[in-house]
Amino acid sequence: MKTLVLGGDGYLGWPTAMYLSARGHEVAVLDSGVRRQYDHELGSGSLVPIEPLVDRVKAWREVSGEDITTYVGDLTDGDVAYHAVRSFRPDTVVHFAEQRAAPYSMIDRKHAVYTQTNNVVGTLNLMYAIAEVDPDVHVVKLGTMGEYGTPNIDIEEGWLEVTHHGRSDRVLFPKRPGSFYHLSKVHDSHNLEFGCRIWGLRVTDLNQGIVYGQETEQTALDPRLATRLDYDAVFGTVLNRFAIQAVLGLPLSVYGGGSQTRATIDIRDTVECVRLACENPADRGEFRVFNQATESFSLVEMAKVVARTVPGGAEVEHVDNPRVEAEDHHFSFAHTALESLGLEPHLLSDTLLTSMFAVIDRHRGRVDLEALAPAVDWRRATDDASTTAAARV
Amino acid sequence: MKTLVLGGDGYLGWPTAMYLSARGHEVAVLDSGVRRQYDHELGSGSLVPIEPLVDRVKAWREVSGEDITTYVGDLTDGDVAYHAVRSFRPDTVVHFAEQRAAPYSMIDRKHAVYTQTNNVVGTLNLMYAIAEVDPDVHVVKLGTMGEYGTPNIDIEEGWLEVTHHGRSDRVLFPKRPGSFYHLSKVHDSHNLEFGCRIWGLRVTDLNQGIVYGQETEQTALDPRLATRLDYDAVFGTVLNRFAIQAVLGLPLSVYGGGSQTRATIDIRDTVECVRLACENPADRGEFRVFNQATESFSLVEMAKVVARTVPGGAEVEHVDNPRVEAEDHHFSFAHTALESLGLEPHLLSDTLLTSMFAVIDRHRGRVDLEALAPAVDWRRATDDASTTAAARV
Repeated sequence: MKTLVLGGDGYLGWPTAMYLSARGHEVAVLDSGVRRQYDHELGSGSLVPIEPLVDRVKAWREVSGEDITTYVGDLTDGDVAYHAVRSFRPDTVVHFAEQRAAPYSMIDRKHAVYTQTNNVVGTLNLMYAIAEVDPDVHVVKLGTMGEYGTPNIDIEEGWLEVTHHGRSDRVLFPKRPGSFYHLSKVHDSHNLEFGCRIWGLRVTDLNQGIVYGQETEQTALDPRLATRLDYDAVFGTVLNRFAIQAVLGLPLSVYGGGSQTRATIDIRDTVECVRLACENPADRGEFRVFNQATESFSLVEMAKVVARTVPGGAEVEHVDNPRVEAEDHHFSFAHTALESLGLEPHLLSDTLLTSMFAVIDRHRGRVDLEALAPAVDWRRATDDASTTAAARV
Repeated sequence: MKTLVLGGDGYLGWPTAMYLSARGHEVAVLDSGVRRQYDHELGSGSLVPIEPLVDRVKAWREVSGEDITTYVGDLTDGDVAYHAVRSFRPDTVVHFAEQRAAPYSMIDRKHAVYTQTNNVVGTLNLMYAIAEVDPDVHVVKLGTMGEYGTPNIDIEEGWLEVTHHGRSDRVLFPKRPGSFYHLSKVHDSHNLEFGCRIWGLRVTDLNQGIVYGQETEQTALDPRLATRLDYDAVFGTVLNRFAIQAVLGLPLSVYGGGSQTRATIDIRDTVECVRLACENPADRGEFRVFNQATESFSLVEMAKVVARTVPGGAEVEHVDNPRVEAEDHHFSFAHTALESLGLEPHLLSDTLLTSMFAVIDRHRGRVDLEALAPAVDWRRATDDASTTAAARV
């Protein structure tokens, strides 16, 4: 099976590319390198040192004997999308190639516009390239559980059976997400579902929970194969950030009251979920949605797990919530599709956290404490934050 | 009341600007002129001759004694959005400034990307300008009934009460539209609803039916005040196109079986609906949706009304449907909000059509018959139609 991983240089794209390569896929990656450029813009960076993409690919060949074809280009350029699909001729395209941080999208108008344009146009280009070159290609698209928001009803996997005035229909699950980033994924989902209807595309939309962890079987084989670990307030996701604060002896900073609940998933399950989706493709014309998350925790619960596990313990502090979100809400979501395909979830355990603590401790000298504090405020609308004192960027 | 009409040079923007001016609003218009550029691109044009924007405004001053402030600029430029809001300081912004033709968005990849970028970015820029400069400004945004698609349940006005697994919520009405253009409006609606939540914006989203007619009280005052009338297969809407075919003695071309049903509205009701929305603003933080349509007809029913009314009668022919859409479907939509604010609908009547027939007859020499045939095929995905023989453009 030939699999093209878009965004194959990122936090999850790179481990996914290696995992699929190790499991017998013929893999190509496409990446523009823009994730590394965000680091320069924000003055932040991965806690764990990472190699340039070409060196990663070379190291993977040395370690595994497997080749990964590499394309460097930006998916918002239609020619790049067409070229990758035409020359590699994948069976499956795994699409991670989007700006993926909610706070980044909320910095200012320019970042909101950038995020939505980048994500929506990249996905449109991919859809056209596949529809024109080979509509049989299966698209495995990364979305997020955050697209749903916090409805007062149970969250199903992308679709909802509704009865209204005595009539019934199966409709797209209504979404009310909480950032311009999350909205970009909702836009993508609507566009993709349309592509399935008009061109008979095959699409699996993976609504992924918050990923935690940094090591997979493959990244641990060689330091040159490591994937990034972000801890800054813009790109760092909450569990990873708590783990880093704990190792550094800092209080774990919970936004607001902390009863906000998030769906979560272990990085080792992410790569397996993507494999399962690739190897069990959607039908022609099918827009299939999987909720790619295995558990859920409130922020306070996550902080307590980390505080309980880290040697010496940790304090929990509440900081002003920079986001606009419900803190007390219903949250129950279906996640049976991937498990029915064979996923055996790693649940949030002491073991995983202990392995993270060791990774973090090894690189503790690289932490920039300033980057941990949230500087992006959802309530403040501004054209260009780089011209205002309030923003770090 | 100060009202800024974005897209004020267009088919509906211009009559709306004059109508609000006549009804005591202090009006400004902003337009980039891009609608006229599409004419050059497509080799098409308005059946009724129209004056340049500056001449329209001058003529309106002569005829009515009222000034309309004019901004020329593109809303996708953030500075343009900010400048208009900062310098005019409107109470209300009426937002027509989007690429509004489904077939145009389906020409090829470049037109799909253009349409979604143009529409989504323009609206994001407007949201930021208002949120930063004055979040009290009411946004009256033009959407379309086509956003809903053809669900098997009754269509409500933007929101739906859902009960699921014994729990209830009021959710955004799930939408499955039928073109990249319609999708751009769905994206806008999601973005705007978020703006209401995080910044307390006031938004009225008008999901408008297919507009027919060319004359309003104001456009009829002077030939220089005329608004455009499009009949080509890209920008011409179905009732207007049927009326033109009828006058020319051509068969009325129904796409497919013709049982597809569309919501419709008279141009004179459009301008009144916009006034009612402006003068009865949404609350701070409220995302309000009105279905701006008064009746619905299948394509065959519309053709029969036209054929019955035109002197000498007309034939109806069925042509291959270039769109991908359900032809036999449930279609029932709520439209009580605007009527409860005072709208007294003009229903599709012989009178209105007769006035259109006269306008068309006056300009029949300007028709380019080639422009009437549909050349955009929903099923064909192509990067750039200008390089293929199949497309007119």
